[in-house]
This record gives sequence, structure tokens and C-alpha cells, in this order.
Amino acid sequence: MRNDTIRLLISCPDTRGIIAAVSTFIKDHSGNIVELDQHTDDSSGHFYMRVEVEEQGFSLTSDTFESSWAPLAKRFDMNCQLAWAGRKTRVAVLVSKEGHCLHDLLFRWQAGELAADIPVVISNHMDLAPLAQQAGIEFVHCPIVKGDKAAQEALLEKTLAGMQVDLIVLARYMQVLSADFVARHARKIINIHHSFLPAFVGPKPYHQAFERGVKIIGATSHYVPDQLDQGPIIAQSVCDVGHRDSVQDMIRKGRDLERIVLARAVRLHVSDKILVGGNKTVVFD
Amino acid sequence: MRNDTIRLLISCPDTRGIIAAVSTFIKDHSGNIVELDQHTDDSSGHFYMRVEVEEQGFSLTSDTFESSWAPLAKRFDMNCQLAWAGRKTRVAVLVSKEGHCLHDLLFRWQAGELAADIPVVISNHMDLAPLAQQAGIEFVHCPIVKGDKAAQEALLEKTLAGMQVDLIVLARYMQVLSADFVARHARKIINIHHSFLPAFVGPKPYHQAFERGVKIIGATSHYVPDQLDQGPIIAQSVCDVGHRDSVQDMIRKGRDLERIVLARAVRLHVSDKILVGGNKTVVFD
Amino acid sequence: MRNDTIRLLISCPDTRGIIAAVSTFIKDHSGNIVELDQHTDDSSGHFYMRVEVEEQGFSLTSDTFESSWAPLAKRFDMNCQLAWAGRKTRVAVLVSKEGHCLHDLLFRWQAGELAADIPVVISNHMDLAPLAQQAGIEFVHCPIVKGDKAAQEALLEKTLAGMQVDLIVLARYMQVLSADFVARHARKIINIHHSFLPAFVGPKPYHQAFERGVKIIGATSHYVPDQLDQGPIIAQSVCDVGHRDSVQDMIRKGRDLERIVLARAVRLHVSDKILVGGNKTVVFD
Amino acid sequence: MRNDTIRLLISCPDTRGIIAAVSTFIKDHSGNIVELDQHTDDSSGHFYMRVEVEEQGFSLTSDTFESSWAPLAKRFDMNCQLAWAGRKTRVAVLVSKEGHCLHDLLFRWQAGELAADIPVVISNHMDLAPLAQQAGIEFVHCPIVKGDKAAQEALLEKTLAGMQVDLIVLARYMQVLSADFVARHARKIINIHHSFLPAFVGPKPYHQAFERGVKIIGATSHYVPDQLDQGPIIAQSVCDVGHRDSVQDMIRKGRDLERIVLARAVRLHVSDKILVGGNKTVVFD
Repeated sequence: MRNDTIRLLISCPDTRGIIAAVSTFIKDHSGNIVELDQHTDDSSGHFYMRVEVEEQGFSLTSDTFESSWAPLAKRFDMNCQLAWAGRKTRVAVLVSKEGHCLHDLLFRWQAGELAADIPVVISNHMDLAPLAQQAGIEFVHCPIVKGDKAAQEALLEKTLAGMQVDLIVLARYMQVLSADFVARHARKIINIHHSFLPAFVGPKPYHQAFERGVKIIGATSHYVPDQLDQGPIIAQSVCDVGHRDSVQDMIRKGRDLERIVLARAVRLHVSDKILVGGNKTVVFD
Repeated sequence: MRNDTIRLLISCPDTRGIIAAVSTFIKDHSGNIVELDQHTDDSSGHFYMRVEVEEQGFSLTSDTFESSWAPLAKRFDMNCQLAWAGRKTRVAVLVSKEGHCLHDLLFRWQAGELAADIPVVISNHMDLAPLAQQAGIEFVHCPIVKGDKAAQEALLEKTLAGMQVDLIVLARYMQVLSADFVARHARKIINIHHSFLPAFVGPKPYHQAFERGVKIIGATSHYVPDQLDQGPIIAQSVCDVGHRDSVQDMIRKGRDLERIVLARAVRLHVSDKILVGGNKTVVFD
Repeated sequence: MRNDTIRLLISCPDTRGIIAAVSTFIKDHSGNIVELDQHTDDSSGHFYMRVEVEEQGFSLTSDTFESSWAPLAKRFDMNCQLAWAGRKTRVAVLVSKEGHCLHDLLFRWQAGELAADIPVVISNHMDLAPLAQQAGIEFVHCPIVKGDKAAQEALLEKTLAGMQVDLIVLARYMQVLSADFVARHARKIINIHHSFLPAFVGPKPYHQAFERGVKIIGATSHYVPDQLDQGPIIAQSVCDVGHRDSVQDMIRKGRDLERIVLARAVRLHVSDKILVGGNKTVVFD
Repeated sequence: MRNDTIRLLISCPDTRGIIAAVSTFIKDHSGNIVELDQHTDDSSGHFYMRVEVEEQGFSLTSDTFESSWAPLAKRFDMNCQLAWAGRKTRVAVLVSKEGHCLHDLLFRWQAGELAADIPVVISNHMDLAPLAQQAGIEFVHCPIVKGDKAAQEALLEKTLAGMQVDLIVLARYMQVLSADFVARHARKIINIHHSFLPAFVGPKPYHQAFERGVKIIGATSHYVPDQLDQGPIIAQSVCDVGHRDSVQDMIRKGRDLERIVLARAVRLHVSDKILVGGNKTVVFD
């Protein structure tokens, strides 16, 4: 992704003239559109659009955009999200003991695949502290003491606030977050579930898959909603299994799926390529 | 698949010496093994094996095999299924109104992909009669008159018996078969379900998939058990979908999955490549 | 695809304001954009766009569009292709002896998957005449008499002209068309090559794949250019193979790939979703 | 994979009685076969078999096996490879500057996915030394001084010999090894090529793929032969690309393919699951 562009994510009721109005607005402020993608959901009558504009030459700034844009937003009843050029999403990665997803995210981040900052790794265990520290990232231990989850979440919140975190990634974090916590970070928490949702909701999905004798297993990344293991799906991937695959083989194959599917969701989110409508995502990639 | 071979499908409790005993038995009767595949399910302690032997030179025949084999089968407590060379599985295809799976099976059969005879197509509607007749196959109309399913199933049974059918293929047959019917044809009925089981059990799975916002859809072929849409899975396949895909697009894409997954299951069954253990299949392909 | 929309396919050198100009033009003529997709190829500096506009309410017709549009086209140096609502692409399918691709196209066409008319099937052999005729399509036999290809192509041209054909689909047509013929139908001939191009160009690709010991085989649909088996690629698909797969197994598996990949290319073309730039395609799907 | 089993890899001309002879030999020495897989290549008349025997109870040892086995090997003209239980393949990983494959292999090794020892990482550059050292593995710098490749390969050989290396993995090692070096390590060097071979042999395959406009890219792991980028293929994988993917996107997507395909080849090799016949592999997985 280019880092010299402004990204607009727009959703509103569908009607005539939206694209003309938005593209004319940008042209009138000397902007150059380098990417425009839109979608109309016929079943809901909702319109979604992503526009990427070169910062150079654009006559509006983060200070002046809002007031210029307001009449247009009002006219079309738009919900608009704006990401300015160069601004990187700040990501906190939450983990427990399994390191494959964290390992993978850190490598991609170091390789420049993710246009994000990762200021902190947080865990209820100490096992993955070295991994974070080798990457030069602060590791914060938020243990659950005597089952007091409320205290732990308070510490979590304090850490996230202190680090000015925009996105929380649950990279095989094995704790259920409270409904309050999730509500405070709506659409800002991405989880990886190690099954092809909605098959095998709940714990130990690879064991369930083995028992059922499926011929394909999968992994799913999604935004965390109030209910367990539901929420708008961002990405899914699958691979073949057969009668020779034990539960352990499925877990091994599944790790590859989980890594790829979680990384894909994070990349899409930090590139401002996801819009959420109801319980679904519109992914402009 | 070669049509000049005998196929043995064996299952028994795992113990030492099974392969040596079977391969020596075959050698002692001048048989040449052209394919041997085996699997031990560590979780159940069960052993599965498929052996393919050239008919030419083999000193046993369908008349003499049984008595020679009996001591070995008894010693290992074997469940054994035997298919003689040249014997083709006789398949009845049951359909309702949608023709894509029937169309595909007929084409593969005409192209020589399926080592089977298809003496009859049966339907509760008349729509697909021309398709069967163009392929030179008898079409039998078994309508459900006044909701009398028992009468219809009696006609069905009579037709199947008259045609000496070995395998019943439900190629988008939209009726639920009675538990009695299914019990009489245990492991002899293959169904195609238009979802990636166990996701979206039940009616209108593509509508369910659309509502849930999944990024991958699938199809599943399986043996029909007593319960609806469960049963040992034989084959599955998937394809990507996105926010641009309407329910109609999913139905269109799904047709391709259904055709391929059902044809694969039929090919595996008539090639004697499937063993069933509990609620799972062992597929030697 | 909706059949009540007008499709514009535009390509031009990239510059500021194209989207604003086009979308404003449409709005100014009371048009409602239901789909807009665009792409800028940074390596060539070329801009591609597809716009789908509801016919209802649009104030321009096929008679008046050209003169209204001309100034805009000139200003941006646009290459523009226009498909009016309800107008179906007329497709001729050319075959030799192998029927799987024709069979598949006819079924999809009958099922309503292809927004096209298929007035004629043409072949240098008689084998597939019954297949065409069962579908109610005229079959024209264009044999190659005494190696006189020029005479055959003349007959071919006459048939195509008589049927007012827009698109020629080579559905495993085993003859090489002359450079003159191809030049007369530039970007109007789609071929299926039974390998994953550019691997295994030339004859008997499955035999080549078997000899090379690849673990994946593929199929490729593409526009026919002047050179053999090159040309802008439209769609590709692959499947796994292994040491157990003979050449015959690869041919069987490949048939499924060929059917799907050719049908996909035809669907995309007749839905006006393909733009060609140089030796590549831009596919808006 | 179990680490308490002995693996036999056998190849010989096909004839009657091989399986019976081998399985009886094992039974006669109190062995329990836990896995047997075989394949007859009809085109070459060659027979391949992999047998896995529990060490416990087996009456032969590495000292006594050879002499007991010899008559049988001679009778069938067998080529036999034997891996004793608990013996781990010693792997040297050769790299240049790109770390994604090394990173991935080290993580899998630490996670217990690879039944191997990795005593050394060798490179002609210093860039990846920290990665090896963080994993607790010795890093040996073998630079190419003044273009003197012979001197470098001598140092390489000395290092490999000192570490008693069984398998050399080229994890994006950007140097061509001399024919002599390769000949000394025949079938003991695995390479990853960043294309779907045989498409795009040679340098910069992603650039070639971009220029050609393919819709799928791939990666291939293979044994290194005397010629560049040929050799028996072990594993391949692919992913979709489209007109929106730049060369950089292809490189990014390709990294995921390369990691998975190389790791798969290494896992298969160190699990004694690959037999080579001519220019092809037989992979028993």
C-alpha cells in the first residue's frame, strides 16, 4: 500500500449521484483519486465506497477537511471514516501461550508487510515475552490473579490507553473478554478462530473436526462481537485433510491457516480496506 | 481404474501380521498385487486395507474364494468386501427438478470416467425425463401422490429391485427418505449437500451462507444416515465468495462445487475405494 | 448479471478527474451508476474503468449517446466500448471431437448462467452434431478437405457472418487458425489451453506434465493472438496431482479444469467485464 | 510422525510377491508394521514402497539388519534405504539475505514440526546471523571473496563435514552451486524456486509472471540437480493474483508460498517419505 495517500471509507443509503458528488468534491479540491472501489448491497439498499486520494496537491488538510466535507456528508447521510497519509494504525497484540500467530505477525511487520506500529504485546502468561523483546517490542504481563478478570481488564485498558492503541489483535489469546470491554472497542478487536466458521464454534475445533471426519479444515478471522465466536468475518482459508491426519496433524496444518488468515485480516484493517455493515464485512482489496 | 482387477476391502481390529497374512494368501494363490493401501486408526485401534489383485493368474474364483479365505477372515475377525473384475456397480440416480448434478454424472458416465452402469433415473417430477432419455437411460416417475410417501417409497423399492441397483445417488433429490428405507440401504445411498458440512445443516444453505457473510462456501458428499444431513463424509470442496456475490451468485458457484463433489464420491464408491468406520470414511485414492 | 444496464468499458492515459468527469456526465443525463470499478496500471500509466448504468431513467439512447459522449472521450483520449441493455453477445462455439467443454457451455447457457445467445456450433468433424442439436442449436460442419485450410476458413467466415457472431469460443478446437483469420477477429476469439501457461506450451501438455513430474496441473483461457498459445490470459485454475496419477488421470482431472476455466472466460466476456491492455487483461469481477 | 519407528524405503523392478516377501520378513522378525504404502509406476515398470515398523519388539538391530535383509534385497534387486528410530536428520540451512524461509523453518523446528536437528545456518552474507543465533544455532559466514567460489565451496564442504550434515536446504540461497558440489550431495540438497515450475525458470520469476499477466503464481521445492532450476519436484503451491497485484504484491504473496512449500519438502524428507525415480518423486504422505 502507498503511504502517501488519504483513505476515505464511506457508507450511506444508496441513491443517485454519490460517486459523482464525491469525485467532484475531490477534483474541486485538486485531489487525484488513485483508487476507487464501491459496492451496493441490493439486499439492504446500502452503499459502500473506498476512495484513495494522493495527499500531494490535495488542498484540504486534517484541519480543514471536516468543515468542507460536512455538507456533502449530511446531504447523503454518510458515515465517513478518514485516514490521513502517513498515519499508522497502532496495534496491540494479545497472546496467551501459543506463539505461531505472534511470531508470524512480528515477522511480517519487520518485513514491512504491515503498515502499522506495534508498540506492545500483552499476555496473561510470560511464555512469549522473549519473542516480543527480540523484536524490540514492549511486553506487558496482565495475569489473571485469583480469577479476578475485572482487575485484569482494568490493567489491560490502562495499557492500551497508555500506548494509544487503535486496534487489538487476539493472536490466539485464550481468554474471553467481557461484554463491556468489547463494547468499548467495537470493531477494533480482531480475533482468529481455528475453524471454518460457522462450523465448529466453541472450544477445541480441531478435535471436533477430527470426530466429525471432515475432509477440509479451516480458519476464520473476524471482528469480535458481544457473542462468543460470532462477528463479521474478514477472511477465511482452508486446507485438505484425510483419514491419515490425526488431531495433532490438523493442529499443525491449522497453524499455517491461522497465521495466514489472521495476518490477512490485520493487513486489510490497517490498510483501511474493510467496511462493516451489520454482521458482514465489505472488503475492498 | 483398471477393470481387470479384484478389489478387497478389509477392516478388522489392528494386530500384528495382517499385511503379511493377506499378501502371502494372495501370493500363495498366484495373485499379483497391483495396489495396496492400508491405514490404522490409532484412536479406535481399527485397521483398514484395500488390496487390488490382477484377475489374470489368480487361482481363486468367485466360487472358490470364500472357502479359502474364511480361515484368515476368522483369525483376524475381518469384515471383508470383495469386488470381482469386470463387475460394474449398478447405479440409480434420484433427482427432483434441478438437473446440474444429473447432467454432469451422465456426461462423465458417457465419457468413461465412472466404472458403473446407470440403468435408471428416478424422479418425483417429470422435468428431467428428457435428459435421461437423451442418454438412453430409462426414466421412472415416482410422484408423491396426495402426500403418500409410503406408497412412493414402495414404488421406489420395486424399481430399484427390478433394476438390481447397488448404489443410490441422490443428485439434488429434494425429498427426505424414510428411516426404514435408509436402513434397508445402509451405506448404499450417497447424497450431495450444498454446504460445507457441518456448517449450514438444513434447508437453503446458500441463503444461510449469504446471511452469515462467509468468505468461502462449500459442498459435501456423504453417505445417508438415519439423521438428516449427517453421515460419513466422502468428499468436500470449497470456493471463495465475497461481498459482491449475491445469493444467486453463490447458487451458481455452488453448482460447480456440487457437480464435482458428487461425481468424486460416486467415482470413489464404484471404484471400491471407500471404507466406512463409525461416522467416518477411509478413502484410499 | 443484470440485463437492464448499460456497460461502459473505458481505457485511457491516467490523469486527474476522469472519474469525476464520467460520473458527472452520467448524473447529468439522469443515469444511476449501479457498479463502478477502476484500475490504474502504475507500470504503464494506463487507466481502466468499467461503469454499469441503469437504462431506466438514463436520458441517452444508442442513437444520441455517441455525440454527447464525444467531447469527453476526446478530452481524455479515451478508448470506449459500450454495451446496451438487453443486447446479448452472439457466440459461436468451435469444436473438434472432444465434447466436455461444449457440453458444459451448453448446460450453463440453458441454465441461464451465460448472458449470451449461441446461434451455432461449428466443427471440422461430425462427432458433436447430436450434442448441438439436442440443445436446439444449429450445427455447421466445416471439414478440412484435402488439407485446404483456406477453403475451410472461408466457409467458417461465411457462417460467422451469416450468424452475426460477436465472439468465437474455441472449445477444444484442435486446428490452428490462420494469422489473417485471427487478425480479423482480434480480441474476439477465446481459447482454452489445457495447461497452466506459460508452462507446457504446445501439444500434449498433460503428457509433458506427467513427464516433468509436477505436483499441480492447470488450465488457461485466453484471447487468441497471432502466436500459438500466447495471448492475454483471462482465467486460470489448477488442481493437485501426485505420483499415482497417470496421464489418463491428468486428462480426466484436467477436463474439469478446462470446463470451469473456459466457462469463466466466456461469462466474463459476455458480461463485458474484461479490458485488454497490451498482453494482459484487466478483469472487473 | 512417530519417532519410535524404523522406516524402510524400497525401490526395485516390479514383480510378484514383493509385498508378501517384505511383510513376511518383518513378521518373522517380530516386527509390527504401522504404515505401509506402495506404488507401481506402470510407465517405467518400477515398484516403490515405504514401510514403517515399530522398533519395540523388532528382533533386528542396526548391526544385524543388513545381513538378514541381504538375500531378500538381492532376490528382488532392491535399492533400500533404512532410517532407524530416534535418528534425526541433521540439516544445514543455507541463506543469503532474505530471511522469510529461514525464519519459518526455525519456528517450525522450535515448535517440533520437523523431526530434525539443525546444527548450522550458513550464509555468504552476515544479515541473518542474529536470526540463527536467537534460535541458538551456530551461524557460519562463508563469503565469496574476490569471486573465488571454489574457495568458498571448500569452506562450505568443511563446515558441512564438521557438522555431519545429512541434508542441505537452500532457503533462498542466491548462489549457484558448482556441478561438483551438487554431484557430491546428490538428492541431499533441497531448493525453493519462487515460481510454479516449469513456468518462469531463471531469475526474477515474479517479474516474469507480472509481465506475462498470469492469474495464478506459485512456488516449487525440488532436489537440486546438475542443471539450474530443474530436478525432481517435491511440492508445489499456488495462489491467485490479479490486475491489482504489482510485482511487489506478488513478491509478498509469494513469500507465503515459498515458506510453506519449502517447509513441506523438508518435513517430507526428514520423515523419510520421499523416493526419487528418474526425474520424479514418489511422495508417501
